[in-house]
Amino acid sequence: MEALLPKFDSVFSIDCVIFGFDKGELKVLLIERNEEPFKDCLALPGYLVEQNESIDFAANRILYELTGLKDIFMEQFYTFGEVNRHPQGRVITVAYYAILRLNATKELKPVTNYAKKAFWHPVANLPELAFDHSQIFAKALQKIKRKITYQPIAFELLPEKFTLSQLQMLYELILNKKLDKRNFRKKMLNFGILKELDEKQKGVSYRAAKLYKFDRRKYGKLFQKELTF
Amino acid sequence: MEALLPKFDSVFSIDCVIFGFDKGELKVLLIERNEEPFKDCLALPGYLVEQNESIDFAANRILYELTGLKDIFMEQFYTFGEVNRHPQGRVITVAYYAILRLNATKELKPVTNYAKKAFWHPVANLPELAFDHSQIFAKALQKIKRKITYQPIAFELLPEKFTLSQLQMLYELILNKKLDKRNFRKKMLNFGILKELDEKQKGVSYRAAKLYKFDRRKYGKLFQKELTF
Repeated sequence: MEALLPKFDSVFSIDCVIFGFDKGELKVLLIERNEEPFKDCLALPGYLVEQNESIDFAANRILYELTGLKDIFMEQFYTFGEVNRHPQGRVITVAYYAILRLNATKELKPVTNYAKKAFWHPVANLPELAFDHSQIFAKALQKIKRKITYQPIAFELLPEKFTLSQLQMLYELILNKKLDKRNFRKKMLNFGILKELDEKQKGVSYRAAKLYKFDRRKYGKLFQKELTF
Repeated sequence: MEALLPKFDSVFSIDCVIFGFDKGELKVLLIERNEEPFKDCLALPGYLVEQNESIDFAANRILYELTGLKDIFMEQFYTFGEVNRHPQGRVITVAYYAILRLNATKELKPVTNYAKKAFWHPVANLPELAFDHSQIFAKALQKIKRKITYQPIAFELLPEKFTLSQLQMLYELILNKKLDKRNFRKKMLNFGILKELDEKQKGVSYRAAKLYKFDRRKYGKLFQKELTF
């Protein structure tokens, strides 16, 4: 006979930080809450984990229920466990993130009434969020800043063919600083991870720029080579 | 009035994966359990989080109580939340890790009777561990393998002055593969992160090798430069 575990007055939750890159703007997916506490406030999509579901499963279910988004590959990145982070009791939350290329066809529509609505909000002027969600968001942003320096996440965010200006804008958005154009181009081309195409931008009123593609194989190699031998 | 949170039959725990680098061997800190389930089995030091402590605090308390180790800087790395990972109920565990240079002066001594004893076990021939701890250990090992390629964790593990052979051994241990000696040295010296000292090893019976130090500033820079501009 095994002893019973002590009962704690504790629950787990999931919060999702979904970044979207949309026509030169970095956005994050928010909901407007329909429940106390923080009714009517803005928050990350998040809710409680049920007894009989794994946390990975819960993350996908909760994101779907609160926003209508499905089949998003999310990665767990940090668990927040301060004692008083939730006004109703002890709630430890496991935070997940994903970073997507937005397109207009993905309609956001909560399927529960826990959220009044879901929408993309520009990262640049984010308001204060419910609970400790501003802190969770900040940690996720830090995470993708680090990640963009050693993993090819830019792949997921740019169209297959892109200009060097679009690539630079992506880095500037995520790193949140202006980069020197000449320097950026020189470094990027030096890495040898870009394939110059025999095509130019179409449908632009200004001087059309050359298009590039990532060389996936070389990109992957670059990010492994340093000290892994 | 705020609604009460639903009661789940759930608890949180902490598990600690503490790596130690000791005279050319990579070890991990284990306990022998004194409690059901898995009584007498080997496990990572881990226990339940209390209601009124943050998870970071709990990690330090639990490591101390089960092993006697104090003031270890641990980092959270992953939360394990499969439904049936614990035979007594729903237990979601937040895993922490640290990597230390061992020295003989750190005595291991549990201060609770949850653990019969605590000891360092070579990573090379790890037995099956209690619960899903083998899986937690594997994830931590993967984490330090990745980390050694982009963060200067080698600092924490080598003595201040070291030989190139010692440095190579550390990389071989963590990456778990033989590296070519000439190639390793050439690459390492090319990085410009080592300072050659005007000293040689002392007290060795074989031909004394040259000693090196890390150039902390350059090491830090190397790991930031790639795509951060």
